[in-house]
Amino acid sequence: MERRSRLSPEREAEIFAAVVRLVMEHGYENVTMQQVATEARTSTATLYRHWNGKPRLVVEAVRHRRPAPLEDVDTGSLRGDFLAGTTAIVESGPDDHDLMSGLANAARTDPDLDRAQREILAAPMRRAVDTVLDRAAARGEIDADAPSREFVPELLFASLIAHKVHTGEFPDRDYLTRFIDHVVLPALGVRP
Amino acid sequence: MERRSRLSPEREAEIFAAVVRLVMEHGYENVTMQQVATEARTSTATLYRHWNGKPRLVVEAVRHRRPAPLEDVDTGSLRGDFLAGTTAIVESGPDDHDLMSGLANAARTDPDLDRAQREILAAPMRRAVDTVLDRAAARGEIDADAPSREFVPELLFASLIAHKVHTGEFPDRDYLTRFIDHVVLPALGVRP
Repeated sequence: MERRSRLSPEREAEIFAAVVRLVMEHGYENVTMQQVATEARTSTATLYRHWNGKPRLVVEAVRHRRPAPLEDVDTGSLRGDFLAGTTAIVESGPDDHDLMSGLANAARTDPDLDRAQREILAAPMRRAVDTVLDRAAARGEIDADAPSREFVPELLFASLIAHKVHTGEFPDRDYLTRFIDHVVLPALGVRP
Repeated sequence: MERRSRLSPEREAEIFAAVVRLVMEHGYENVTMQQVATEARTSTATLYRHWNGKPRLVVEAVRHRRPAPLEDVDTGSLRGDFLAGTTAIVESGPDDHDLMSGLANAARTDPDLDRAQREILAAPMRRAVDTVLDRAAARGEIDADAPSREFVPELLFASLIAHKVHTGEFPDRDYLTRFIDHVVLPALGVRP
């Protein structure tokens, strides 16, 4: 805690922005801590002290740029929550898509990155989805123990990734709306 | 046509096997046509004559290794077709998962590979899914114009990819069975 307190939120944001710029331009695998230190006008010692290594630094930078889908979303209906949480991501453009796909790929051969990504990106998203589903169950929109619950985080993640791979098109608001109405809500037993 | 007829199916299979070995070991981006030629004891001229370049050669090799999910599947029920088509892939182990994810990632920055992957891998899968859904509609299992049809190929693809990214675990037969029963079939209006 004490070690981290030496960076102001502004300084941290500058470092994260430098990380994201470098990863977008060169790809996760090709970025070095020295490059980040130079780009953010700091030292590798500072970077290691605060983030332990490249995996945590990069994943924290991606998380800082864009909170997990559904975090802090509460529109009053399950459909509204899903729409708000997913369209925010696609409307920011293809950059987040590229960052997520690139990290997911690098993580296949980098266990530290894989762990950092699951702890810092996937786990908060899964908890946020659980909160949204608990509220929907409390409102009577779904059964609290609907068996499809376990798949919802992966479906939302997939809705942002699979369409581009399969068709060459980035998902847009219309695609996500149809996906939520015709796949996610029916799986949860909600019919439009 | 005439140009291709000079390779026997056995010779083609050997070349494809060499391609898959090299891509698994080094990653798509790092494999050169010269390496493939050496490994498969042929010439780069032969490789270019038959496959035009690395994108088509690699994607054809991956397709040769493993046909698209659902191709040639016809069990007599929609649930049976989905199960047969997807579990065949996970039961072959993590190698196909790695090959698919690696290609999808490389395709993000390689338009020729992106096109080859969609034409040679994704399009046949989409047609196979359509055939399976048409048969299910003819049997009365689903509506012929169920609005979730457009998502089925991407759902099946996602079921093989998203779970690993999110949880660190490869999907197994149990996971896929639950996914089909609790997500894909309900989305199509089929209740267990």
